[in-house]
Amino acid sequence: MAEVILGEGKTPAQVAGIFSRLAKHGRNVLATRANQKQFEAVKKKIRGAEFRELGRAIVLQRDSKKYGKGIVAVVSAGTSDIPVAEEAVITAEVMGNEVQHFYDVGVAGIHRLLANREALTQARVVIVCAGMEGALPSVVGGLVGVPVIAVPTSIGYGASFKGLAALLGMLNSCASNVSVVNIDNGFGAGYVASLINRLP
Amino acid sequence: MAEVILGEGKTPAQVAGIFSRLAKHGRNVLATRANQKQFEAVKKKIRGAEFRELGRAIVLQRDSKKYGKGIVAVVSAGTSDIPVAEEAVITAEVMGNEVQHFYDVGVAGIHRLLANREALTQARVVIVCAGMEGALPSVVGGLVGVPVIAVPTSIGYGASFKGLAALLGMLNSCASNVSVVNIDNGFGAGYVASLINRLP
Amino acid sequence: MAEVILGEGKTPAQVAGIFSRLAKHGRNVLATRANQKQFEAVKKKIRGAEFRELGRAIVLQRDSKKYGKGIVAVVSAGTSDIPVAEEAVITAEVMGNEVQHFYDVGVAGIHRLLANREALTQARVVIVCAGMEGALPSVVGGLVGVPVIAVPTSIGYGASFKGLAALLGMLNSCASNVSVVNIDNGFGAGYVASLINRLP
Amino acid sequence: MAEVILGEGKTPAQVAGIFSRLAKHGRNVLATRANQKQFEAVKKKIRGAEFRELGRAIVLQRDSKKYGKGIVAVVSAGTSDIPVAEEAVITAEVMGNEVQHFYDVGVAGIHRLLANREALTQARVVIVCAGMEGALPSVVGGLVGVPVIAVPTSIGYGASFKGLAALLGMLNSCASNVSVVNIDNGFGAGYVASLINRLP
Amino acid sequence: MAEVILGEGKTPAQVAGIFSRLAKHGRNVLATRANQKQFEAVKKKIRGAEFRELGRAIVLQRDSKKYGKGIVAVVSAGTSDIPVAEEAVITAEVMGNEVQHFYDVGVAGIHRLLANREALTQARVVIVCAGMEGALPSVVGGLVGVPVIAVPTSIGYGASFKGLAALLGMLNSCASNVSVVNIDNGFGAGYVASLINRLP
Amino acid sequence: MAEVILGEGKTPAQVAGIFSRLAKHGRNVLATRANQKQFEAVKKKIRGAEFRELGRAIVLQRDSKKYGKGIVAVVSAGTSDIPVAEEAVITAEVMGNEVQHFYDVGVAGIHRLLANREALTQARVVIVCAGMEGALPSVVGGLVGVPVIAVPTSIGYGASFKGLAALLGMLNSCASNVSVVNIDNGFGAGYVASLINRLP
Amino acid sequence: MAEVILGEGKTPAQVAGIFSRLAKHGRNVLATRANQKQFEAVKKKIRGAEFRELGRAIVLQRDSKKYGKGIVAVVSAGTSDIPVAEEAVITAEVMGNEVQHFYDVGVAGIHRLLANREALTQARVVIVCAGMEGALPSVVGGLVGVPVIAVPTSIGYGASFKGLAALLGMLNSCASNVSVVNIDNGFGAGYVASLINRLP
Amino acid sequence: MAEVILGEGKTPAQVAGIFSRLAKHGRNVLATRANQKQFEAVKKKIRGAEFRELGRAIVLQRDSKKYGKGIVAVVSAGTSDIPVAEEAVITAEVMGNEVQHFYDVGVAGIHRLLANREALTQARVVIVCAGMEGALPSVVGGLVGVPVIAVPTSIGYGASFKGLAALLGMLNSCASNVSVVNIDNGFGAGYVASLINRLP
Repeated sequence: MAEVILGEGKTPAQVAGIFSRLAKHGRNVLATRANQKQFEAVKKKIRGAEFRELGRAIVLQRDSKKYGKGIVAVVSAGTSDIPVAEEAVITAEVMGNEVQHFYDVGVAGIHRLLANREALTQARVVIVCAGMEGALPSVVGGLVGVPVIAVPTSIGYGASFKGLAALLGMLNSCASNVSVVNIDNGFGAGYVASLINRLP
Repeated sequence: MAEVILGEGKTPAQVAGIFSRLAKHGRNVLATRANQKQFEAVKKKIRGAEFRELGRAIVLQRDSKKYGKGIVAVVSAGTSDIPVAEEAVITAEVMGNEVQHFYDVGVAGIHRLLANREALTQARVVIVCAGMEGALPSVVGGLVGVPVIAVPTSIGYGASFKGLAALLGMLNSCASNVSVVNIDNGFGAGYVASLINRLP
Repeated sequence: MAEVILGEGKTPAQVAGIFSRLAKHGRNVLATRANQKQFEAVKKKIRGAEFRELGRAIVLQRDSKKYGKGIVAVVSAGTSDIPVAEEAVITAEVMGNEVQHFYDVGVAGIHRLLANREALTQARVVIVCAGMEGALPSVVGGLVGVPVIAVPTSIGYGASFKGLAALLGMLNSCASNVSVVNIDNGFGAGYVASLINRLP
Repeated sequence: MAEVILGEGKTPAQVAGIFSRLAKHGRNVLATRANQKQFEAVKKKIRGAEFRELGRAIVLQRDSKKYGKGIVAVVSAGTSDIPVAEEAVITAEVMGNEVQHFYDVGVAGIHRLLANREALTQARVVIVCAGMEGALPSVVGGLVGVPVIAVPTSIGYGASFKGLAALLGMLNSCASNVSVVNIDNGFGAGYVASLINRLP
Repeated sequence: MAEVILGEGKTPAQVAGIFSRLAKHGRNVLATRANQKQFEAVKKKIRGAEFRELGRAIVLQRDSKKYGKGIVAVVSAGTSDIPVAEEAVITAEVMGNEVQHFYDVGVAGIHRLLANREALTQARVVIVCAGMEGALPSVVGGLVGVPVIAVPTSIGYGASFKGLAALLGMLNSCASNVSVVNIDNGFGAGYVASLINRLP
Repeated sequence: MAEVILGEGKTPAQVAGIFSRLAKHGRNVLATRANQKQFEAVKKKIRGAEFRELGRAIVLQRDSKKYGKGIVAVVSAGTSDIPVAEEAVITAEVMGNEVQHFYDVGVAGIHRLLANREALTQARVVIVCAGMEGALPSVVGGLVGVPVIAVPTSIGYGASFKGLAALLGMLNSCASNVSVVNIDNGFGAGYVASLINRLP
Repeated sequence: MAEVILGEGKTPAQVAGIFSRLAKHGRNVLATRANQKQFEAVKKKIRGAEFRELGRAIVLQRDSKKYGKGIVAVVSAGTSDIPVAEEAVITAEVMGNEVQHFYDVGVAGIHRLLANREALTQARVVIVCAGMEGALPSVVGGLVGVPVIAVPTSIGYGASFKGLAALLGMLNSCASNVSVVNIDNGFGAGYVASLINRLP
Repeated sequence: MAEVILGEGKTPAQVAGIFSRLAKHGRNVLATRANQKQFEAVKKKIRGAEFRELGRAIVLQRDSKKYGKGIVAVVSAGTSDIPVAEEAVITAEVMGNEVQHFYDVGVAGIHRLLANREALTQARVVIVCAGMEGALPSVVGGLVGVPVIAVPTSIGYGASFKGLAALLGMLNSCASNVSVVNIDNGFGAGYVASLINRLP
């Protein structure tokens, strides 16, 4: 698996220091919850590092081999959920998986999701990111026969209580193939999906 | 509108007393959250009263005129949500509406819901009852162009917190045509739907 | 219905881009939770756009036809609730309704509300916005015989928990004609009211 | 002030023992949250004791002098709130106050409350008991110019969370003359009202 | 009673405008939750206005008559609770009461409180402000025989949840003479105390 | 996959009816949250049905083929967590997996867990059930390199809030390979594990 | 230390079996949260076992040596808190400590507590049990200079939320020498106190 | 014991004033939750004062005598927990204890903790700081036979709810030797540990 740093709460110098140290192991390196300044500090030390802004990640992709056996699908509900979904996408890619994403397929416009049904059923594991009512994993769970990892996002206002509504919704999913990670934890979902997809 | 009594927490004698007093007004009478014993006490005083067990309601239907202009659709997710859905159905019927129900069309088997799409779009107002993750109103809301009244039910366990998860989900619905009533409040949903359906 | 964009969390350029794209459909366009900078960006592209500051909305009113059959009344409790109430007013207006508003008629000065009773009973649907204890929808619900859509606002402090107290109050309303939308969701209330008011 | 025992959680023998011991002090004695069996045990020892069933209280009224300077008004919203209201009434009476009660004057039928406005404004202190949305103290607070003690009751279901909704509502009252006691604490309200009414 | 404005959330111009309008009524005027800039704007219009910084209040004291019959005592636990306590003090003073304050007498140093016992028992009504565990009203309640109004403050961290711990503590007080107002609501406590102290 | 019925909340006749209908499909049948009376009703119709009391499950094992590619390990913390763990075990077995269980290996006696480390690392997917502080999945997650499905149980008292403490703990696990299902949802964990173990 | 069994949730036969097995180790044996039936089953196997009903504990005291270096004081607020306090007392005694208890010294009658001040300051470690507002540990903490272990009890109603109010109060104690155990966890407090008292 | 000031919420001048006043008592002085500016103000008045940045503390160490009888061990889970752990370390040192710290020994890498087992068992009292799932005190509690003081930290995101998850986890610890202080209360833990370690 790749080496991972949590960027949040660290100075650019700290991130750059840890990043370059990990880079010596020869594996892919991923810094999550990173920002532009941290990237600039890393970039000075490690030329090949890239900043994937939408997913707030710094990536050093040394090894492009696909260790995963199939496709990891990443599905998200609204535009605002995309950063979390991208964190999952990038994590899964850095961990050596082929990833396919399906964005803006929220449940209130079910036809957009159903239009992707065929493609979704090709995946070996599915990550679903949604805020607000967090209903999407239940619907996706009913469409596919593989494990679904649900990621509640903090998107919403008022009674969403920063992702609590979505989290509770997902934990109570009536689809039996759904398990859940922490609010906004795109990395965790990408990591678990990678482990599942690598199983021999 | 019909006369209404809340049966819960009242003795059979109390329910029967109030019921027969209200019956003198000549309108339909409805006792919600009622039980068999209360019904027996009512029955002795009011011959025409019926017990609709599934919806836990005692009904005296004097006036069968349809005051509503269109159809009130009542949709529910799982088998255990039916008592709440039936309370909504009975309320809307007693208030003079044509009601059509769609049960067991939860989101994890989306095809069952979609199979009823045509019929659903015929309704003038839609009530949706669901427990657990409470995702159904969002999906139904996206399928119809009329007001949707969402009823969270207390069905679920663990992190459903007796309907709280479903309630929060519905309040955060990404479908703009959804408003919400209290947990298990089938009566309230039927009442609001009746008011909407009666609008000239 | 009008085209709608959520302004919150978008850059002025993004809002302006989406706004002008939607404007091509020929219908009214509404951007909610918008700010002055977003308006300026929109204004450069779409001359007819107006900024309704109190309700934080950018409006392009192309079609002034009244699709609603009656009056939508918007009632609010305190001065601080007015922005949410205005969001409801503007939404209902852009959706083609005649709107009448009744502000600063909180329950602790019940005579101010009662002074408007006559006018209120003329409405075909009523929206009620209130923060703090959220008691107003229950009182209004008892005064009118039409559907009431309650909007809890995040106004208050301490044990208001950013609108939670008002939300719970409204969900437990003893008036049977009340349904509820999310905290501060003036748009949702205006949208549901428009759907109700349009019913043939 | 009278002597007080909390009946709840005590055996009939315990209540009777404490009651008769307190009775020796020569003052009024009050057992709150008491039941029929406890009363029977007390009755055997203390002839003059009475059971006030609705308020679940055993009362020994030795001293009928009115120590309070004015009237304590006790207002309640729904039928189910009456036991708590009665506990407040009995407490205030046993403590030597003239009490006047106003039951079933909930906010959804505001005219019933307003019909009692004249009488209410005669009180020197007002207790208001309400469950569900707990809106009544705010309305009453606006009608009178004296201290209002609000008692949330556990009446309600679903999102009332056993009185939490009413409690939060009352704490956020927009009427400045309202203070609050614990859920179902009719005794506390009666006690505080008595202290206020006795002030020289 | 004095005229009152809530300063919080208003511009200096708004506060000054309302303040000078209210000042025309000839009574005392109080702006709560006010800041220096608001005061400067008021000062330009109303010469006699004073800023009481610690209590964040702008005061125009026209009428210095004592309407209260006795002393209002204001007790607070820690240094950080003083702003809330001062809001109560100023409110009671502006409403025409003699006020005596007892600060820094928290329960962990009970001797400091007990040293003031004699003085405390002279009061006709007592306000107690405390954050963190909110224990002080129970102890004070046991020391005096008059009504105690408890004000939870938002002082604390972690599991104080911004005053929730103190609020719950006060609602569950084992002293029967305690009633409670909202978190940080020094004004409300001062207002209720004034009403009590004015009772003839 | 096997056919599944939720026994909870159904009469023995209902369970027996559904069970025998599902049995006609020729696959394994599983009734979860079942009781002795339900089993007796099933037994009369379906001879081969067995009651696995500890896991509260009725099982009809028609097909004993192992569809899973490796071992599903089920780990639990305390004795009281065993019923939930057994539900997971039985589910995984009925779905065609080889299951190995490790009970009573809670974190306060870490050596008991470590003694099983070797065996644990042989599993292809691990289910971990724990109540109280819910710490076990984090420790197990650190010991194995495969997906861990965490099941919070409702075991505990006081501040465990019926499994909430364990649920929150597991969602915040510092081990990246952990995903979570609802409180007491042994079935869901067994189902997800089966899907993972079946992946080709 | 003594051997310990949690009685709650076990059959009399299970308790008796485990108890007699543990008794073979020759140390003291304690079954907490035990009932009369469990005791009778134990008694048949182990003659010396005693039932300490108030503290719901079965005790086999083989070794009466005092391992603790000083006195463990156990303080409790109200009568209803005594069972939890007794659990702490018995635990500390069985673990070999001299225990002194101070019951019914709640904060609303501070003089009763202060009357025991002298004795309290003799203790080497103090356990304080309180429900409702949970204020007692702060006051006791201020009186003594040794570690205080606070035990919130589930005693109370309404906004006590089964001990949550007391728990939060204790966690926010302004006395620095207070640490807290779970709601009703008299055993845990007795155990920690024993460890502290045994320190050489 | 040392003199202590809470720096948080005080101006540099206030901290410096109180600090120098306390310094006159001749004992060690500790300002917790302090910042660089406060330190600079203190430094001008008290030459010997030092700023321990990581633990956000200003320290004046006059008396270096070891009053504690043994070692206070301070254990923490992740890098982000170190500031809280350092607050505990500094508090214990200023109070006259020999302190040994064990950082970055979180439960997901149990071998790092176990590598320190020998050293840990030498301590007379152990403080354990952890955020996220708060599992570490249970594991440490099982490894040592002395009192463990658990400090939940606010480290985490989403469902950590600013330390609530860790707090609940620790209160429900299955290790009997654990008691808990408030979220981020490193000072409190250090203080209680000092009291325990000083016991003769």
